[in-house]
Amino acid sequence: MKVSELGEFGLLDRLRGLLGKGGGGVLLGIGDDAAVVEGGDGDAWAFASDAMVEGVHFDLSYCSWYALGYKSLAVNLSDLASMGGCREAYALLSLGLTGREEVERIEEMYRGLLDCGKRYGCIVVGGDLVRSPDGVVVAVAVVGRMRGKAFLTRGGAEPGDIVMVTGSLGDSHLGLEWLMRGGSVENPCARRHLYPVPRLEEGEKSLRLGARASIDVSDGMIRDLGHICEESGVGAVVFRERIPVSEAACRTAEVLGKEVLQAALYGGEDYELLLVVREEDRVSFEKEVGATMVGRVTDGEGVAVVDEKGEVVPPGGVGYQHFEGEQ
Amino acid sequence: MKVSELGEFGLLDRLRGLLGKGGGGVLLGIGDDAAVVEGGDGDAWAFASDAMVEGVHFDLSYCSWYALGYKSLAVNLSDLASMGGCREAYALLSLGLTGREEVERIEEMYRGLLDCGKRYGCIVVGGDLVRSPDGVVVAVAVVGRMRGKAFLTRGGAEPGDIVMVTGSLGDSHLGLEWLMRGGSVENPCARRHLYPVPRLEEGEKSLRLGARASIDVSDGMIRDLGHICEESGVGAVVFRERIPVSEAACRTAEVLGKEVLQAALYGGEDYELLLVVREEDRVSFEKEVGATMVGRVTDGEGVAVVDEKGEVVPPGGVGYQHFEGEQ
Repeated sequence: MKVSELGEFGLLDRLRGLLGKGGGGVLLGIGDDAAVVEGGDGDAWAFASDAMVEGVHFDLSYCSWYALGYKSLAVNLSDLASMGGCREAYALLSLGLTGREEVERIEEMYRGLLDCGKRYGCIVVGGDLVRSPDGVVVAVAVVGRMRGKAFLTRGGAEPGDIVMVTGSLGDSHLGLEWLMRGGSVENPCARRHLYPVPRLEEGEKSLRLGARASIDVSDGMIRDLGHICEESGVGAVVFRERIPVSEAACRTAEVLGKEVLQAALYGGEDYELLLVVREEDRVSFEKEVGATMVGRVTDGEGVAVVDEKGEVVPPGGVGYQHFEGEQ
Repeated sequence: MKVSELGEFGLLDRLRGLLGKGGGGVLLGIGDDAAVVEGGDGDAWAFASDAMVEGVHFDLSYCSWYALGYKSLAVNLSDLASMGGCREAYALLSLGLTGREEVERIEEMYRGLLDCGKRYGCIVVGGDLVRSPDGVVVAVAVVGRMRGKAFLTRGGAEPGDIVMVTGSLGDSHLGLEWLMRGGSVENPCARRHLYPVPRLEEGEKSLRLGARASIDVSDGMIRDLGHICEESGVGAVVFRERIPVSEAACRTAEVLGKEVLQAALYGGEDYELLLVVREEDRVSFEKEVGATMVGRVTDGEGVAVVDEKGEVVPPGGVGYQHFEGEQ
């Protein structure tokens, strides 16, 4: 069977079986936003990596080199955020270049990377440079020293818990659409797409406030909630009318002739935190994390979207899946 | 100016200026085989990453998927070896696939990666999977928890010190040539090319025995010694007659019609440790590390190869440089 037929998640499942749980000092192995290992002291260390390939994850006709550098680190820090944040973080960049790039552009990329690092307390410590004749590849790995040994996973949701999300959803997907149609990078949704906000503080607070499960929204909210459900052995319903959308997303969707809720539920790369919390903790998550209640965990399986009458709304699309449509 | 005109090392120099020394808990920033940061306890942590691109760093017509996985981790562990080894190591894999690969091949790659990890005490904790339409990209990052806070760098060589190297040189380059001409993977040089040995134990002993500088031979021995010279502000002479070459390298070179010493001095990817040690430590490095004396550090600059009469031998080639010859 070919990788494209099995799909990203099918392949990940098989590889997960090969890798196992890790052993040694591994507190959490493959299958979550980051792996976690024990340090020699009281702190655990979280590791994550995320690669971006030209023509697949970015297009330099609308994504500046600066934004590319910024985003490549931000999406990795988002993985640390969903584990519960960290005291300090370090990043390594493996950069594949064709050789045809102007040197100044590469410096701009590094400035973007460094600016993102400065903003979120992550030091870029090195990496390597290789030739990649067919296009640019940006592979970032991050290492975060956590606060103690506790961390959040995808696996702790229980029936009756509620589902919450930080910020607003759909902006990034609409921003990408906007950019692809030649729109200005000054559109707030376009900025959300190019400069995602890793929710490190929110992740840290969520850990402290006792969230039961967490994931960052990269594949699309419904799909990412599906990951939590699989790992926790539960189901979930999402209340369509409660999904937080920004005014900018509404306006951009209108101009594009798109459905804003479709983007919010199924669009990827928002990098908000999707949290599962106990019912009684809802108010503290609203106040301290700025999260909105969007659904509830059930004892079924899978994720259903319901309207204000409680009736199931059929999915109008699915989140982004790598290899999709490839032969 | 284009990246191909400036070259890999020129670009790295410019980026190094941008990145600076790191600050925070960074003990060693960009510009060595690995970066080193302070842990919360008595140990430092070393980070390195190294990417391999299909058609540039490997060719699946003679490099099996298993070997690709094995080697992608081994070359990263070699970076930890040259820093002085580690208590334990963890690896992350960012894998770019076209989607056209057979799933079984990817599993073989993972088996290679895992087998290398098992052999050298490195646990593969995760990574990510992305689509890369034009060819396979394997980006590995490793994190090693070191024994204490001491580590080796490229920067400690002093005039009068001697230059030593572990194992033998040139095998990998000749093995690659052998494979490219359709030779069997059972040739010992071919095996050295496909399954490099990260010199972790030798690195650890070298640190303990007080080596002054260290690097792993990836770009070619003369070029890598040049990196030590630049970082240490010294020069070096290499005694051509003392270069250790294996019997297999001699035989393979003969069949290929190649000069074995040329391969040993300028061929890349041997992943031996090139060490600079005090004259008085030579015997203990010979006995305990199994290293051979090959040269001497001078107060000049650059690296010269001399024959048995002490006369300079003109370079017959240079080590591998990424982007070389690209426009």
